[in-house]
Amino acid sequence: MKDVSGLMVPEFQDVVDAHERIKPHIHRTPVLTSEYMNQLSGAELFFKCENFQKAGAFKVRGACNAVFGLSDEDARRGVATHSSGNHALSLSYAAGRRGIPCHVVMPRTAPQAKKDAVRGYGGIITECEPSTTSREEVFARVEAETGAEFVHPYNDPRVIAGQGTCSREFMEQVQGLDAVIAPIGGGGMISGTCLTLSNIAPHVEIYAAEPEQADDAYRSFKAGHIIADDAPNTVADGLKVPLKDLTWHFVSNHVTDILTASEQEIIDAMKLTWARMKIVMEPSCAVPLAVILKNPEVFRGKRVGVIVTGGNVDLDKLPWMKG
Amino acid sequence: MKDVSGLMVPEFQDVVDAHERIKPHIHRTPVLTSEYMNQLSGAELFFKCENFQKAGAFKVRGACNAVFGLSDEDARRGVATHSSGNHALSLSYAAGRRGIPCHVVMPRTAPQAKKDAVRGYGGIITECEPSTTSREEVFARVEAETGAEFVHPYNDPRVIAGQGTCSREFMEQVQGLDAVIAPIGGGGMISGTCLTLSNIAPHVEIYAAEPEQADDAYRSFKAGHIIADDAPNTVADGLKVPLKDLTWHFVSNHVTDILTASEQEIIDAMKLTWARMKIVMEPSCAVPLAVILKNPEVFRGKRVGVIVTGGNVDLDKLPWMKG
Repeated sequence: MKDVSGLMVPEFQDVVDAHERIKPHIHRTPVLTSEYMNQLSGAELFFKCENFQKAGAFKVRGACNAVFGLSDEDARRGVATHSSGNHALSLSYAAGRRGIPCHVVMPRTAPQAKKDAVRGYGGIITECEPSTTSREEVFARVEAETGAEFVHPYNDPRVIAGQGTCSREFMEQVQGLDAVIAPIGGGGMISGTCLTLSNIAPHVEIYAAEPEQADDAYRSFKAGHIIADDAPNTVADGLKVPLKDLTWHFVSNHVTDILTASEQEIIDAMKLTWARMKIVMEPSCAVPLAVILKNPEVFRGKRVGVIVTGGNVDLDKLPWMKG
Repeated sequence: MKDVSGLMVPEFQDVVDAHERIKPHIHRTPVLTSEYMNQLSGAELFFKCENFQKAGAFKVRGACNAVFGLSDEDARRGVATHSSGNHALSLSYAAGRRGIPCHVVMPRTAPQAKKDAVRGYGGIITECEPSTTSREEVFARVEAETGAEFVHPYNDPRVIAGQGTCSREFMEQVQGLDAVIAPIGGGGMISGTCLTLSNIAPHVEIYAAEPEQADDAYRSFKAGHIIADDAPNTVADGLKVPLKDLTWHFVSNHVTDILTASEQEIIDAMKLTWARMKIVMEPSCAVPLAVILKNPEVFRGKRVGVIVTGGNVDLDKLPWMKG
């Protein structure tokens, strides 16, 4: 960890330490290939399947690093976050493995299935109204009452160091990659990828893939400063959140380019992956493939690592099924 | 191959030869595990993922063995079959790899998606009316005109020896299995499993799993002779076909027991596997898990190998989606 103009930035040693710390609690996920996808893209694609990860997504890496890095005294008071997605599941899982409480502040309007999933991993839900003001108020109260340690879904050096373990495994599993591509929302996975690759494989290009309808990271990247959108709408619901100072640090310094795809391109790529690779993955994870198929001139002839970030999907509401 | 009262029965050496012959054309599919499924079943489950196999199903093993076992002269005339399912895809794939024609007789009423899939693998479709009489007539004409070699979907020693390679890999990948379970329709996979295990791991129990609504193999097994149903109806559409003399030979001699599950149990097990293991598998492959969850007293505490037979699903018509 080093101080960069007041920002606590994780270093590669933090990734190494994180990996050691979380190994007993995560899967070393497999890498799949598909001749069909290679022919279609003209590239050689390697899919790192974090959809097979514990709690169904890469987020468990950062969550476990945060939880298992706490001192016994801090840990006793538990951890807390506000999220209705994979970070809440992952933090609940990690806290459960350490035997400490995990407090999750969620809008009372969140889907029952998401609440059930968090409770299924042992998370304790406190409901708030569906507004930022209410969420912040309720969260502040929970934090004050419990003394729980706040773990941000992505703008946290412990979380980014944890996500960086994914690319470290990837580099061990596949030799000679020319590029790695991952979806970008708040930028946690991309930041971890930047942190690891800039240290152990600085020649590997790093692409971020984003929905056109939530392209704030793309516009930030082109503008040279953070642009945050208010409540963008996309099927890739894991990618609606904006960059923050720490993830912007990595994105602005190490990302090769950010490329975008339309809603229909994302849905088509998602369905194609299910149909041909026989894996269940979230809409968010389909954005990289959509981008690869849309920009063959960028990827043709390259060995490209694709990070499949998660597999937590509502099987009753698949985006290609109409109403 | 040995003659058993006029029946040409494959022997274990045929499995070994088949494995050598088909290795360049198939995947050595991975074995997945799930802590969740273990807790739910009380058993230790190992899933052999033939849904990741070439052409999306185990059937490519038998099809490749039949196609690549032909002499150059016989091969030149091509192969032929009648099937609208995975066997047609697999035989088309295998023939394409050898560069020979594959003739598939299919009812003109078969779904367009199935016709497209067969053509996508290079198969040449000849349409018949949706009746057994028409199918047999049209098939006889195709056979006579082309001289193509008929490859039955399951009642063929070459096909059974090919399917036997799956369990051979499985035994190398997982040590100390107590039982193996696979779905049963015509009995090709189960026969290959019997052939291999009775030779290299005779202590391993062999269970077959069948839909209640197409339980002809179950009733045959209990009666001691083949009972064939006319057009049973089940969501597990790969399992509607009856046993034949060669598969009955293996089933009657080597299967430990046949267990059945209801339509709802099959759909629930399928959805559960998609949701928790993040893999796309056919309804047919969910029958073993349904049976395991329904009969905990049979499987509890055992190390059980589950053969996930295929992943070719119509993603627009999932059985848990109404309407």
